Amino acid sequence: MIYFDNAATSFPKPDIVYDSIMKAMKEYGANPGRSGHKLALRLSREIYETRELIARLFNIKNPMNLIFTFNCTEGLNIGIKGILERGDHVITTSMEHNSVLRPLKALEKEGVELTIVKGDLAGRIDPTHIKNSIKKNTKLIVTTHVSNLTGTIMPIDEIGQIARENGILYMVDAAQSAGVYHIDVERMNIDILAFPGHKGLLGPQGTGGLYIREGLDIKEIFQGGTGSISHLLEQPDIMPDRYESGTPNGPGIVGLGAGVKYILEVGIDKIRKHEEELTQHFIEEALKIDKVKVYGPLNVKEQGAVVSINIGQEDSSEISYILDQNYDIQVRPGLHCAPMAHKTIGTFQQGVVRFSFGPFNTHEEIESGIKAIKEISEQV
Amino acid sequence: MIYFDNAATSFPKPDIVYDSIMKAMKEYGANPGRSGHKLALRLSREIYETRELIARLFNIKNPMNLIFTFNCTEGLNIGIKGILERGDHVITTSMEHNSVLRPLKALEKEGVELTIVKGDLAGRIDPTHIKNSIKKNTKLIVTTHVSNLTGTIMPIDEIGQIARENGILYMVDAAQSAGVYHIDVERMNIDILAFPGHKGLLGPQGTGGLYIREGLDIKEIFQGGTGSISHLLEQPDIMPDRYESGTPNGPGIVGLGAGVKYILEVGIDKIRKHEEELTQHFIEEALKIDKVKVYGPLNVKEQGAVVSINIGQEDSSEISYILDQNYDIQVRPGLHCAPMAHKTIGTFQQGVVRFSFGPFNTHEEIESGIKAIKEISEQV
Repeated sequence: MIYFDNAATSFPKPDIVYDSIMKAMKEYGANPGRSGHKLALRLSREIYETRELIARLFNIKNPMNLIFTFNCTEGLNIGIKGILERGDHVITTSMEHNSVLRPLKALEKEGVELTIVKGDLAGRIDPTHIKNSIKKNTKLIVTTHVSNLTGTIMPIDEIGQIARENGILYMVDAAQSAGVYHIDVERMNIDILAFPGHKGLLGPQGTGGLYIREGLDIKEIFQGGTGSISHLLEQPDIMPDRYESGTPNGPGIVGLGAGVKYILEVGIDKIRKHEEELTQHFIEEALKIDKVKVYGPLNVKEQGAVVSINIGQEDSSEISYILDQNYDIQVRPGLHCAPMAHKTIGTFQQGVVRFSFGPFNTHEEIESGIKAIKEISEQV
Repeated sequence: MIYFDNAATSFPKPDIVYDSIMKAMKEYGANPGRSGHKLALRLSREIYETRELIARLFNIKNPMNLIFTFNCTEGLNIGIKGILERGDHVITTSMEHNSVLRPLKALEKEGVELTIVKGDLAGRIDPTHIKNSIKKNTKLIVTTHVSNLTGTIMPIDEIGQIARENGILYMVDAAQSAGVYHIDVERMNIDILAFPGHKGLLGPQGTGGLYIREGLDIKEIFQGGTGSISHLLEQPDIMPDRYESGTPNGPGIVGLGAGVKYILEVGIDKIRKHEEELTQHFIEEALKIDKVKVYGPLNVKEQGAVVSINIGQEDSSEISYILDQNYDIQVRPGLHCAPMAHKTIGTFQQGVVRFSFGPFNTHEEIESGIKAIKEISEQV
C-alpha cells in the first residue's frame, strides 16, 4: 500500500499518537474540565499541554487564545461568521476550499459583500489584486496558506501586511500547511488561524483548532456547558471556554499533542525538507511522461506537497481507480471540494488526480507512483 | 479506583471499542466519503454501519436522517437554532442542562419567546404544565429525557403526545438516557433527538449524533466541504451531508459503532436492569446514613442511574475531594452545568455530590461508596 492522500488526512500517524490516545482512553478517559477528580484533572492537564505545544508551534503568546474545534471547517465557520455582519465586505480567493467559500456564499445571501480574487493558471494569488479590492467596509481578508488542489503556497506574509496597513482582519486557513510550514501569527499579522488536527499536525480525526488574537470579539456559534461559570445561563465570555461548549475530544486532543510533540522533536524544517524533496522528485519525473499534465507552480519554493495531474483526457476517477486497484496506490480524484480552484486552473470538467505526500512517504514510493503513472499512460 | 462519574462520560469502555478505534486508525485511517480508494471506502462503510446500528437502537426508519456531530451540545444547538426564528415561542423545563438553556437564552435576546416550566423538588415535570404553556406561536418543545442532576426520568411519551396533538415540534436531549433507556422516535413522537456518543452509548469522546425527522427543514449552522456535489458553492441540502461539513471523526464513529453493537448484544434491558439495581441499592443505603440528604425521586421507576447527595451543609467540592483523595472514588460536585435545576431542588448554593453509575460498576463498588460516605459523614 502506498498512501498518497495526506492532504485529505495524514496516514499513518507516529506510533506515539496511537499510544497516547489509547493510554488516555484506558487510563484517564474522564470528562476534562468538569469533575475535578484526579482522572479529569489529568486529562485537563494533558489538554492544556497540547494547547501550549500548538501555541509554541505558531508563536501564539497566550495558549488560552487557542480553542479546540471538531475540525478545520468548524474553526473557519466560527471565524468567518463570528466577524462578518450584514454590510461588511470580505475578500477571499478563487483558490479556497468549500470550507471557506460555502460559508462566505451563505453570508452573501444575508447581505455580506464578497470579492473573490482570481488566481492564475498555477493557482498563484497576486497580493496587489487583494490590495486593490479593499473597500471602505472591508472587514476581513481570508485566504488559504497552501492550496489543496495545486499546492500553491500563498503570499500570506504580504497579505498579512496589507491587512494590517489597512486595519483589516486577516484569517488564514492552514489546512494544508500546519505542521509543515512555519506559521508565526505575530510576524505574519494573522488575526485568526484555523487548522485541522488530523493532517500535517499528525493527530487523530475529530480534532482541529482556531487561534483568535487577544481581545478580538468573535461571536460564538454554540452555547452550552463549559464547566465554568456554571451558575450563569449566559455563555461565559472567557477564553477558551466561550468557544468550547460540551465535552471536548479529550483523548483526541492528547493524540494531537503527541503529534505536535513529534513534529517539534523531529523538527518542522526536516519534515518540510523531506516533503519538498519528494514533491520535487515527483514533479520532475511526472513532467517527463508523455500525455501527463502536471498542475501548479511546479517548483517546491512555491508549492507544498500536493501535486495534481491528469493523463490525457482521461477521467480522474478512472485513473485513481486503476491506481488503487492495480497498484494499491491511494490518491484523490475529482474536484477536491474546491470547484472554483478547478475553474481557475481549467480542470472543472475533468477533475484531477491528486497526489499528496506526508512525512512517512519515501523516495521509493515516489518511484513506484511514477512507474504506475507511466504504465497507465501507455495503456490508455 | 471506583469511577462513579458516568453521567459526565462513561468509563471504561468495552474492549471492543478501544480495539476498533485502533484498528480503524492503524489499518484504514483515511478520510471517509472523500477519496474513493479502498481505505476511504472501508471507513465510509463502517461509518454507515454505525448509522444503521444507531438507527436500529432508536427506531429511526432511514439511517440517512441521522447525522454525526462532535458532541450532544452541537446537536442541540443545530436543532434549536435551525428551527427557531424571531417571533417563535419555545417551551422547555427548569431541569435542562446549559446545553439547552444557554442556546435558548441566546435566542431569547434575538426575539425568540421562551417559557421555562418548573420541576418539583424531585425534578419531576408535570406534562400539563407544558400543555398549559402552549401559545399560538409555539413552535418547539425541548426537554431532557433524564435529568443530569436528579436522574429524574421525564414523561417524554406524554410530552411527545402533547406536541403532536398541537402541531408542535418535539426535541429530546438524550444525554443521560441514550443506550440505557428505550427510545423510539416513532412511537414517542420525537422530531429531533440529540445524543452524545461517549456516555451511555459507550463510544469515545468527540462523537455524538442528531436525528432529524424526514422532511423537517432545519437550517444548517456550518457550511463546508461535504465530499458531495462538490461543484457547487452552495451547501448541499441532502441528508446527512448538509449537516456534516468537513472531516468527520472517522475512527471515533467506528468506536461508537462498536459501543452500540456491544449494547445491542448485551441487551439494553439487561444494562438498564443492572443500573437500576445499583441505583436502588445506593439510594436505599444512602438514605440510612445520618446527615445525608438524597435528591431526586428516590425510586428507579422514576430515576436513572444518577443520584445526587449532600452531607449536612458541607460543600460538595470538599466531599468530592475527600472521596477522590482518600477513597479513590470519582464523582462530580458543584452545579453540573444545570444551575436552574439546582435552583429547582434547592441546591444552588451548596451544589451536590453526584454519583452516576454505568454498566461496568458493581454492587461491591456501591458498598464501598456507601461505606466511604458513612465514614465521611461521621467525621465532618
